[in-house]
Amino acid sequence: MAKTIYILNGPNLNLLGTREPEVYGSETLEDLQARCDRKAQALGFVLIFRQSNHEGELVTWVQEARADAAGIIVNAGAFTHTSIALLDALLACPVPIVEVHLSNIFSRETFRHHSYVSKAAKGVICGFGGLGYELAIEALASTISPAKSG
Amino acid sequence: MAKTIYILNGPNLNLLGTREPEVYGSETLEDLQARCDRKAQALGFVLIFRQSNHEGELVTWVQEARADAAGIIVNAGAFTHTSIALLDALLACPVPIVEVHLSNIFSRETFRHHSYVSKAAKGVICGFGGLGYELAIEALASTISPAKSG
Amino acid sequence: MAKTIYILNGPNLNLLGTREPEVYGSETLEDLQARCDRKAQALGFVLIFRQSNHEGELVTWVQEARADAAGIIVNAGAFTHTSIALLDALLACPVPIVEVHLSNIFSRETFRHHSYVSKAAKGVICGFGGLGYELAIEALASTISPAKSG
Amino acid sequence: MAKTIYILNGPNLNLLGTREPEVYGSETLEDLQARCDRKAQALGFVLIFRQSNHEGELVTWVQEARADAAGIIVNAGAFTHTSIALLDALLACPVPIVEVHLSNIFSRETFRHHSYVSKAAKGVICGFGGLGYELAIEALASTISPAKSG
Amino acid sequence: MAKTIYILNGPNLNLLGTREPEVYGSETLEDLQARCDRKAQALGFVLIFRQSNHEGELVTWVQEARADAAGIIVNAGAFTHTSIALLDALLACPVPIVEVHLSNIFSRETFRHHSYVSKAAKGVICGFGGLGYELAIEALASTISPAKSG
Amino acid sequence: MAKTIYILNGPNLNLLGTREPEVYGSETLEDLQARCDRKAQALGFVLIFRQSNHEGELVTWVQEARADAAGIIVNAGAFTHTSIALLDALLACPVPIVEVHLSNIFSRETFRHHSYVSKAAKGVICGFGGLGYELAIEALASTISPAKSG
Amino acid sequence: MAKTIYILNGPNLNLLGTREPEVYGSETLEDLQARCDRKAQALGFVLIFRQSNHEGELVTWVQEARADAAGIIVNAGAFTHTSIALLDALLACPVPIVEVHLSNIFSRETFRHHSYVSKAAKGVICGFGGLGYELAIEALASTISPAKSG
Amino acid sequence: MAKTIYILNGPNLNLLGTREPEVYGSETLEDLQARCDRKAQALGFVLIFRQSNHEGELVTWVQEARADAAGIIVNAGAFTHTSIALLDALLACPVPIVEVHLSNIFSRETFRHHSYVSKAAKGVICGFGGLGYELAIEALASTISPAKSG
Amino acid sequence: MAKTIYILNGPNLNLLGTREPEVYGSETLEDLQARCDRKAQALGFVLIFRQSNHEGELVTWVQEARADAAGIIVNAGAFTHTSIALLDALLACPVPIVEVHLSNIFSRETFRHHSYVSKAAKGVICGFGGLGYELAIEALASTISPAKSG
Amino acid sequence: MAKTIYILNGPNLNLLGTREPEVYGSETLEDLQARCDRKAQALGFVLIFRQSNHEGELVTWVQEARADAAGIIVNAGAFTHTSIALLDALLACPVPIVEVHLSNIFSRETFRHHSYVSKAAKGVICGFGGLGYELAIEALASTISPAKSG
Amino acid sequence: MAKTIYILNGPNLNLLGTREPEVYGSETLEDLQARCDRKAQALGFVLIFRQSNHEGELVTWVQEARADAAGIIVNAGAFTHTSIALLDALLACPVPIVEVHLSNIFSRETFRHHSYVSKAAKGVICGFGGLGYELAIEALASTISPAKSG
Amino acid sequence: MAKTIYILNGPNLNLLGTREPEVYGSETLEDLQARCDRKAQALGFVLIFRQSNHEGELVTWVQEARADAAGIIVNAGAFTHTSIALLDALLACPVPIVEVHLSNIFSRETFRHHSYVSKAAKGVICGFGGLGYELAIEALASTISPAKSG
Repeated sequence: MAKTIYILNGPNLNLLGTREPEVYGSETLEDLQARCDRKAQALGFVLIFRQSNHEGELVTWVQEARADAAGIIVNAGAFTHTSIALLDALLACPVPIVEVHLSNIFSRETFRHHSYVSKAAKGVICGFGGLGYELAIEALASTISPAKSG
Repeated sequence: MAKTIYILNGPNLNLLGTREPEVYGSETLEDLQARCDRKAQALGFVLIFRQSNHEGELVTWVQEARADAAGIIVNAGAFTHTSIALLDALLACPVPIVEVHLSNIFSRETFRHHSYVSKAAKGVICGFGGLGYELAIEALASTISPAKSG
Repeated sequence: MAKTIYILNGPNLNLLGTREPEVYGSETLEDLQARCDRKAQALGFVLIFRQSNHEGELVTWVQEARADAAGIIVNAGAFTHTSIALLDALLACPVPIVEVHLSNIFSRETFRHHSYVSKAAKGVICGFGGLGYELAIEALASTISPAKSG
Repeated sequence: MAKTIYILNGPNLNLLGTREPEVYGSETLEDLQARCDRKAQALGFVLIFRQSNHEGELVTWVQEARADAAGIIVNAGAFTHTSIALLDALLACPVPIVEVHLSNIFSRETFRHHSYVSKAAKGVICGFGGLGYELAIEALASTISPAKSG
Repeated sequence: MAKTIYILNGPNLNLLGTREPEVYGSETLEDLQARCDRKAQALGFVLIFRQSNHEGELVTWVQEARADAAGIIVNAGAFTHTSIALLDALLACPVPIVEVHLSNIFSRETFRHHSYVSKAAKGVICGFGGLGYELAIEALASTISPAKSG
Repeated sequence: MAKTIYILNGPNLNLLGTREPEVYGSETLEDLQARCDRKAQALGFVLIFRQSNHEGELVTWVQEARADAAGIIVNAGAFTHTSIALLDALLACPVPIVEVHLSNIFSRETFRHHSYVSKAAKGVICGFGGLGYELAIEALASTISPAKSG
Repeated sequence: MAKTIYILNGPNLNLLGTREPEVYGSETLEDLQARCDRKAQALGFVLIFRQSNHEGELVTWVQEARADAAGIIVNAGAFTHTSIALLDALLACPVPIVEVHLSNIFSRETFRHHSYVSKAAKGVICGFGGLGYELAIEALASTISPAKSG
Repeated sequence: MAKTIYILNGPNLNLLGTREPEVYGSETLEDLQARCDRKAQALGFVLIFRQSNHEGELVTWVQEARADAAGIIVNAGAFTHTSIALLDALLACPVPIVEVHLSNIFSRETFRHHSYVSKAAKGVICGFGGLGYELAIEALASTISPAKSG
Repeated sequence: MAKTIYILNGPNLNLLGTREPEVYGSETLEDLQARCDRKAQALGFVLIFRQSNHEGELVTWVQEARADAAGIIVNAGAFTHTSIALLDALLACPVPIVEVHLSNIFSRETFRHHSYVSKAAKGVICGFGGLGYELAIEALASTISPAKSG
Repeated sequence: MAKTIYILNGPNLNLLGTREPEVYGSETLEDLQARCDRKAQALGFVLIFRQSNHEGELVTWVQEARADAAGIIVNAGAFTHTSIALLDALLACPVPIVEVHLSNIFSRETFRHHSYVSKAAKGVICGFGGLGYELAIEALASTISPAKSG
Repeated sequence: MAKTIYILNGPNLNLLGTREPEVYGSETLEDLQARCDRKAQALGFVLIFRQSNHEGELVTWVQEARADAAGIIVNAGAFTHTSIALLDALLACPVPIVEVHLSNIFSRETFRHHSYVSKAAKGVICGFGGLGYELAIEALASTISPAKSG
Repeated sequence: MAKTIYILNGPNLNLLGTREPEVYGSETLEDLQARCDRKAQALGFVLIFRQSNHEGELVTWVQEARADAAGIIVNAGAFTHTSIALLDALLACPVPIVEVHLSNIFSRETFRHHSYVSKAAKGVICGFGGLGYELAIEALASTISPAKSG
């Protein structure tokens, strides 16, 4: 049976494609989900792909992932920088976690340079738009079943 | 003619495979180069792969890359956190730059959280060991010839 | 057709009139809404007036406002100081935004001096209790249809 | 009629017993609730015992407690360190408040040393696991009906 | 007899209309004074409207206002951020004080985010250009003779 | 044979009952000792109860406790915030340590928010006056002989 | 011929006796001058006693004092904390300087704890109201003609 | 009966006259005591004059002073900057307190600029060597029996 | 017609030649003016050379310079580090500005390392005494009429 | 025999003319050297003009300059902000040192505001492009042979 | 006659050998004293070797050393980081001082990185356990009688 | 066969004996090497003694030492405070490391108080000039062959 990967998206990512397209591109969240689905399928994984503007909902989803996920990809959006609750949920999760951001948060405003998510993540990928999600799936897949990497 | 990608490695990366293998893995820098070469070739690129313990040499190589590189991948090692000279060289480079680290620098000591290289990079990939280099090549390839991404 | 203004109120503002009346006055949130409705009507605007204790709900409302609002007035309460998610939603909103506070946050505890909302706001009005909302409507009206200002 | 005490638990406390048992013990939140119920009953109090991953829900519960609680015990989890909204709700509450934490937050990571909740609390108890809740009930009972203390 | 309101303007405000008009508008200080006079008259107040580049002169004017002003509106310009002397003069003034700024100082350079004036002000209005002065008169009028507010 | 608990009190606690009684209550240190003795006896422990204004004396007593104490309760008073020597003594002590304060130090001046003692303590109880000492004995008793807790 | 002492008073000290009398007392600046004159005369000195709200005027007076003063007493008011210009003028003055404040600036707001004047002063006297000026004259007299001290 | 003033001297002040005489003068602590005795006697006060290198002893003396002192003069030496215990003892003392230092601590190393003692003191006198003690007695005398000041 | 250059000098520069000559040299401000006049004349410029101890006067002069100056040289003295008002005036000036200091402010006290003036200046020259003014005229001349530089 | 001046250029200055010409101009390092040579010759000096991307090489050149240089001009580029090694070499050099920068580093990113080189330099010239080098030669010449300055 | 060296040990060093032996070794303070005596004797010195948990006692011993010591070796333990009183005593001591620590304080917790003692010490030796004391004696001996060094 | 010890010296140490001899003594690096050779030989070790102004070269030498060194002594000069690259090389080295400095860096400028090298060193010796090197060899010898220490 195919293993499951959670991709959890934080606040305002539902605006993708309509918000500052010169920064975030014209791809919508639905486009991005489709793209990720194709990539996951190719690598033999099933995706659960969600977005919420609610910190509490993201925390709950991470808790759910403890039951059936083989790995989690998190783009926590603004919660990256403020949510210790999300960090705690991730720390309580025994599966590998990959942090992803569409833009390079380290070349933006100073208050976007610090990430609580990083403290729980195996690795970070940022600055490559939607492609970053595909790379994250690839990285996660390699971590979960390292024998197949390469 | 195949386009050229520079992969520049900073101080102590020549120790790869022999230094704290539980952290950095048993892959040597030569192994890593071979792995990158395969990946680059598959994507139609030629690699120039170098390592130096000298900040000045890395600066000079970045300057050289201005002449013939289609993109640069930089793992500046410890210079990531201290070298404004390297940042300036990268800022003077009109090609896309990808920052890569073997470990997740954001979950290590505080003095490793700040990166000067990030200010010049399109994106950052860290925490995935040698695989991160392959992802960086993929990301760079996609940036250079975006029509082929996907 | 009358243009629409959103007035969004953050956490604990539903307590208005019952919480520290010597600080916040005896006017309830309903009183305040009525007062704002009268003012908006007089200036030819329709109000959507809401309150939530949930950051995510406020983010979602700001996103909704993108569709039909001519302007937004935000009293984000405590989220003023902590919510980058709300800031991001406001930054993605092309209409003018006015930040309002019942009390003068700049003469209170230090942790209330910093506002993320300000980074997205055209202007700030604070310290005038319920009257501040009326002034905010006036200011917003003037911004939306400047020809009528004066 | 027995007086009511609210015990409000913040994010991730629903994981109790399953998350890092070596740190937080094997007692689940249900066990903890039962234990608290026994203690409260013995002291002549009725408990309302809740948990939420949503900051807004916790704020709302604190607001509800204004109507019928004789005291509040708060383990705000990660919101301890980030939620001014929760602080504001607690400050608007005229009943005594006791802050409790399962672990000793002052011997953990630096970002867990600061508590917004403390600014509204009569006292703090941390580091004693589930027993700390019982001590908090005792302390609160003594505050509410000081004649019985001793 | 009509009550008197002082409007005191700090350094460089005499350049209004000629300095960065895209930021501050084309209205001159004289235009602004006329606009304020009309507003004050309509609300039954007399204005004393002054500008100085000298901190000491502004301090002296605030001291004078103690004798006959019903309220003070201060746009201290750059002295907002540096003058404790002006703050002390305002603190010694028993009448209500409104702080006003043409631009939104909280979305400008960091050194413009701190205001000494705020410590003595009832409220702050910023970001609405000349209209902000009118709103300040309205707010002050409402404070001085609250029965007429509405 | 009954186990021994040390209760060590720091500077100025000898003034208890005479110093700011509205803050610290009218109970004297002797009253407090009697209260603690009763509580300890009820739980089957013997108390050694001491106070000193000398940091060195407190350090020495902690060293003595290494020989015969089953646990230590420390109210280090002002030394809480300044004494690394006391911390070092406590760190060298293999028995459980409970930190207690009469007032809630976290809602007082900023320089009282930091505690060196916390780094060596199992838990902290503050803000409950003399009752806090009883709770500390209870907590310590439960730690020393956990089978009897509940 | 009697030696001359300058006593220079900074902004808002002309309000003495009318501003917050519960803090600064009911003595006016004229009363204070008379008191100082008596003291100076008794010690064989002539006083030049001035007040200004203008930093530049104070700087100029300090420069004048270089010509004929045997010593300077400075109560720079708010300029104490902000004026490097005044510090530079004092540093260029070869005579002994005594800093005086009516209130104890070190137990007031944090921004009043730092003094530029102190860097040029022989000593500081604060917290004793008008008496502090007399003590300053005494201290200065003793410094100027040490043989008479005692 | 003559009222009593305590003069308490902190660590290393017993070295007076032998330690860095170019800074602290050649007057010994005994000389200083004699000088203070003469001054106190002239003003109708009795002195208790002590020195200790022990923080705890100073704390205890301040506690003793609560019984019979009309005022306290403290030169806490190095404890000025580090002892919260001494501050707490002074805060618990209902009599007026004057802080004195031989040198001007505000023009020395940065770590000598902060004083805990100041938070409890009516006023501060520093920089005038032994004369500062006499001025402190004068200031204290004036505070204790203000009718005689003049 | 010759173009005009303003040279504006801040507080205490009128003391030049008499104040710490070992630091600032024996050249007076008049000498310096003469030296600058010769240099300006040689390059075909007319000088307006002024000094003030008043921040407000310097602000006003900068405003005047907007009418007829081809460039401004500013030695703002102590105002360099404290005057945002002066910065604002300079920012409102469309002509090139050169910042000059007699001493090397970057090797002096830390509080002299920060310059507000620099934010508005084309360049900075410091540490060369009066010669620096000549170099500044040269630099300004070159900027104004670059064809003649060489 | 003509005296020798060293002009030492740090990392990336070899890119001059090709890197961000709108910022640094189109003049190459060779052009700049020629310009400096002409200037030096005119003033009777011989130049040694070098550039390196290696911190160690610059350190070594400064050490060489101790043998035969009459003065040193340093544009340390990025090493200005990071190299204590270079500072130490300069501090060990008994000849006058002038710091020069093409751009005004004080109006750029914050991390470029601090200069280690300044601690060893007689003076600083920045913001005037290549002309700044000429002014530096002039300033140095004047320092070396002050009799010829004019 | 043999010269005398004081070796003064701060708080908790009396626990040596029993406290965290894996860190501090199994050597007791008596063993250490014997070892030091042998070393001192071999170099022709007499030792006074003491330990105290009291800051005041250490201060007093340093003062005594002024009378007869040729040098002082200080391991101030925790007082290293907190005691300005001890620093002042050492600064008043004209003999050479060597600071020693058993562990490498610079690789431990941040609050152990700062040493007040260092400001008065000729040199520091840390991290070598008891051997460090012998090296300190050697270093001190060499300083006292340099002719024999080498 | 004798074991090998590396002694690596950082930038500017080649100037020893000629640079600030009043600080560093008149001993040259060659003298120092000779002195160390004698000491090492006496203890049965062979020395490799090197100096470089290049960070990269020092990194490379540390890497070489991994092959054949029994221990390393490092005086990294200015790189002590800035080189994370050197720290990383040392961390990758399994042999004991001793940090040495000629002067007491902890009593010099603040920017010399922090050492990256310390994080990898067993111990630190500073302030004893060339003798410190001998002590370091002794300490290292004792660590390598502890049976011979004593």
